[in-house]
Amino acid sequence: MSQWKQIQQLEMRLLEHVDYLYDDNFPMDIRQVLASWIESQDWETAVNDDTVAVVLFTNLLSQLEKVRIQEQNFLQKHNMKIIQQQLQLKYSTNPTVMARVISTCLREERRILSSACTQEQGPLERSIQN
Amino acid sequence: MSQWKQIQQLEMRLLEHVDYLYDDNFPMDIRQVLASWIESQDWETAVNDDTVAVVLFTNLLSQLEKVRIQEQNFLQKHNMKIIQQQLQLKYSTNPTVMARVISTCLREERRILSSACTQEQGPLERSIQN
Repeated sequence: MSQWKQIQQLEMRLLEHVDYLYDDNFPMDIRQVLASWIESQDWETAVNDDTVAVVLFTNLLSQLEKVRIQEQNFLQKHNMKIIQQQLQLKYSTNPTVMARVISTCLREERRILSSACTQEQGPLERSIQN
Repeated sequence: MSQWKQIQQLEMRLLEHVDYLYDDNFPMDIRQVLASWIESQDWETAVNDDTVAVVLFTNLLSQLEKVRIQEQNFLQKHNMKIIQQQLQLKYSTNPTVMARVISTCLREERRILSSACTQEQGPLERSIQN
């Protein structure tokens, strides 16, 4: 199961933390439509490597273009176009910034998922582990 | 049938004109979720009347808040929140600008629908009308 699918199964209290991670810097629509692809890329390396960041930025735009072309729903197709334009404007000259934003979101998601697991364990299980 | 429903039945060539009407100034998500409400308000008057513009702006935000609260889908709920924040930032101090944007969009939609009707009529019908 993708990390994003796990996220969506969290209770509302934790989902609110996820909600705050996403804004215009990394629209949640992208996270949703490219969930598995995003999780399989090495954003950590791209944060400190311009060449990798450019490749990932270009590939992300290509992935979005594929989604936009295949999308039949008028509103969704339009939203994909708007998001592509926003990303071009924001990151075409600094793709490492995009890599940092995405990398941070993924890491924070993992932290939230991990805290959910810890909370699910009762005090007995936690004391056994410690 | 709402104007927005008629719009969505247009052929792709004309839908592309509609696509260009919408951006961050008036996100298409709002047009979709509040289609009938938007069409029943007097945006033309609000363009030249600050008091009416403030009322319509406040009511639009209330309508969006209702939609956001009722929405069960995490992504859609998040997007509603982002749109509410964008509108607050953009129009809270100049709601007449929002009224002008919405008024223009609705008028342009009617123009596109009207041109579609004209194109559907054959040369004979058009010559009878003229």
